[in-house]
Amino acid sequence: SVGDDLESIHSALSIITNNKYDFVFITGGLGPTHDDITVEAFQQFFNLNKSIDKDYLYKLNKKFENRGIEMPKINKNQAIVLDECEILNNSFGTARGLFYKYHKINFFILPGVPLEVRGIFNTEIKRAYLPSNESINIKIIKTTGCPESTLSSLIEDLFNSKFKIAFLPHFTGVDIKLEDIRNGNREKNIFMELCDKIYKKTKPFSYGWGSDTLQLIVINLIKEKKKTIAVAESCTGGLLSKMITDVQGSSKVFLGGIVAYSNDIKNSILGVNQNTISNFGAVSKETAREMALGIRKMYKSKIGVGITGISGPDGGSKSKPVGLVFICISYKDKYYDKEFTFAYGRDNHRKMTAQTALNMIRLKNDIIN
Amino acid sequence: SVGDDLESIHSALSIITNNKYDFVFITGGLGPTHDDITVEAFQQFFNLNKSIDKDYLYKLNKKFENRGIEMPKINKNQAIVLDECEILNNSFGTARGLFYKYHKINFFILPGVPLEVRGIFNTEIKRAYLPSNESINIKIIKTTGCPESTLSSLIEDLFNSKFKIAFLPHFTGVDIKLEDIRNGNREKNIFMELCDKIYKKTKPFSYGWGSDTLQLIVINLIKEKKKTIAVAESCTGGLLSKMITDVQGSSKVFLGGIVAYSNDIKNSILGVNQNTISNFGAVSKETAREMALGIRKMYKSKIGVGITGISGPDGGSKSKPVGLVFICISYKDKYYDKEFTFAYGRDNHRKMTAQTALNMIRLKNDIIN
Repeated sequence: SVGDDLESIHSALSIITNNKYDFVFITGGLGPTHDDITVEAFQQFFNLNKSIDKDYLYKLNKKFENRGIEMPKINKNQAIVLDECEILNNSFGTARGLFYKYHKINFFILPGVPLEVRGIFNTEIKRAYLPSNESINIKIIKTTGCPESTLSSLIEDLFNSKFKIAFLPHFTGVDIKLEDIRNGNREKNIFMELCDKIYKKTKPFSYGWGSDTLQLIVINLIKEKKKTIAVAESCTGGLLSKMITDVQGSSKVFLGGIVAYSNDIKNSILGVNQNTISNFGAVSKETAREMALGIRKMYKSKIGVGITGISGPDGGSKSKPVGLVFICISYKDKYYDKEFTFAYGRDNHRKMTAQTALNMIRLKNDIIN
Repeated sequence: SVGDDLESIHSALSIITNNKYDFVFITGGLGPTHDDITVEAFQQFFNLNKSIDKDYLYKLNKKFENRGIEMPKINKNQAIVLDECEILNNSFGTARGLFYKYHKINFFILPGVPLEVRGIFNTEIKRAYLPSNESINIKIIKTTGCPESTLSSLIEDLFNSKFKIAFLPHFTGVDIKLEDIRNGNREKNIFMELCDKIYKKTKPFSYGWGSDTLQLIVINLIKEKKKTIAVAESCTGGLLSKMITDVQGSSKVFLGGIVAYSNDIKNSILGVNQNTISNFGAVSKETAREMALGIRKMYKSKIGVGITGISGPDGGSKSKPVGLVFICISYKDKYYDKEFTFAYGRDNHRKMTAQTALNMIRLKNDIIN
C-alpha cells in the first residue's frame, strides 16, 4: 500500500525491480485529479516518453458529451500514453490500463475501482498475458453455524501433506480453503474426492462451493420445491430482504417483505396482537411467531419469516440483553423457531441474524413443503 | 500480504527487520487451527522461548463451558505465550495479541478479525505504546452526486502546498481527504478554515465529515423537523431500509418499509393501480409515485419514498434498459421525482439507487415539511 506521492511510488518500484517478481499489478492513481500520479511516477522511474493519444481524447470528449456535460480539462490526463507500453482497454470507466515489460517483470497498471480491475483483468489480461497451461487448484467450501476449531476437529483425520487446508472465519460462517499442492502430473479426481469428503464430513454446516452464497442456495431450494417466501423484519431492518434480492431471479420465489420497526406497525400492518406485545414483549418468541404468520397471510406465501431482536447498542435490559433475537419460520400449520444471543455489535448482530434465518430455512427445507 | 507458511512469514520478517520501521502491525494467524502459525513463525524467527499460560488456559476452558460446549483441544494453542513479549488482551475473541520490541522496532501481533484488531488497538495499544504528542491532521469531506473531476475543478483555486488533497471515489460518492502537511507549530484554525472553505465550495454535493453517512445526515434532518418516513422498494429490495436502520436510533423517525418485488404486491399491498402498471409499466414515473403515496398512507408517515427500476442483469428492454430507475419522494400533496440510468452492474445499481433516494430527501429537505 503506497501513498500518492512520487517518492513513495519510486521507492516501491525500486523494491519491486530489485526482487525477481514475474507479475506486478499496480492499482489506483489513474483518475483525472491531481493526486492521480501513477502514470507520471512510472514514466519518470523507467524514463519513458509520454504523449497524448488523440483518438482516445476524442472518444473521452464524446463520452462526456453523451452524458450531456462538457469534459473537465483535467480528464485530458487520462489520454496520456507511454512509449513501450501496451494499452489495456477499460469498458467500465475512463481510465485505461497499461502493460510494460521490464526485463522479466510484467507490469500491469490498472485503475483502483474493483469493478474496473476485474473487467480489465478478465477481458484484456487473462488470455493475452498470463500463462494458461498451469492452473492452481483451489476449492472453497462454504460453511455456517459452526466455529472453526470444531470444523477443524471434524476433518483432522483427512489432513495430509498433498493438500493445504485453511480456515477463513467470518461472523456469518467459516470458509474452508483447499489447495492441491502436489507437483507434476496431477490426477484431478484425487483432489476432488478429498474436497467431497470434507464437504460431507462438515455437513450440515457446509452449504456450498466457491462463490455460492447462503441466499443463493436457499432461493434455489425454495425454487425447486416451487414454494414462495416473504419476510417480516424488525431488528434486521431490511437486510434479509436485501440479501435475498441479491440473488438474480429471486423474484420468482421472493414475494417481498415488511420492515416493521415500531410496535404500532407490527400490530396495524402485520397483525401482531397488541396483547402479545404487552404480555411477552416486542422481542419475544410469541411476537416472532405472529410476525411470521402475519407476513405469510399478507403476501400469501408458503413460507413466512419473522425476526425480532435487539441489535443495540441501546434497547437492552437485564432480562432481554442487547444481542437477543428470536427467529421464526412459519410453514403449513407449523412453526420452527429459535432464540439466539449474538453480541458482537449492531452491524454483526444484523448480519448474523439474517444469515441464521436463511440457514434455518435451509436446514428445515425437507419438511417445509 | 503473506501466506500461511513458515517460509513466507520468515522472509517477510527478514525484509521488515532489515528496514528501519518503528511500528509493525502483524494481523491474522492467531486462531486455533493448524494454519494459524503466526506465533510459531515469530517464535522461531526471533528464537524466543514459548510456554503455556495456565491462567489463560483456565479462562479459555471457562469461556467454552459458559457457552455449553467443551473446548476443542486445538484451542489450547491460543494460550501459548512467548518470553520477552507482552500480552495484549482481547475482549472480543479468544486470540490475544502480543507486543515485542526488537531493537527499535515495535512489533504488534494481532488477530485478523477487524472488530478484534480495532478493539485491541483502542484498549491496549493506543495509550500504552503509541506516541501521543504528535497528531496527524486529517479531515474527510463526504460528497455525493458529483464526479471527482468536477469536484476538483470546483476547488482547484484552493490547492496549495501546505495541504494535501486527495479524491477517493466510490460509486456512491467521492470522499475528499484533506491533510495538513505543514511542519512545526501549527495553527490548527488555518487548516480548519481551509476545510470549511472546501466544504462550502463543494455544496450541495458535500454532506458531512469523516464517518458521517448520508443516511445519518438524512435521519437527523428528518428528526430535527419532527417528521417520519417510510419506504416502498422494488429493485433495491430492502437495501434502503437496511441503510436507514444502520443508523442507531433511526426507529424514532423510520416507521418501516415494504419490499414489493412483484406487480401483484405493488397492487394488493401498496395500492398501486392495476391500470397504472399496465399503461405505464411497473418501472415508470407513475408507478414510483403511487408507491411513494401508497407507503405513506399505509404507514401514516409524513414522507414516503417509492423506488422502481431494473437492476439487471435481466429484465431490460429497448425502451427500458437495464439500469433505468425511477425514484419518487411524496410529501404533503407534492411529488419530487427523478429518473436515472445507473449501468454498472446489479449490486452497484442498487447501492447508487438507495444513495440517490437519500440524497433527494436531503436536497429537498427545506421544502419537505
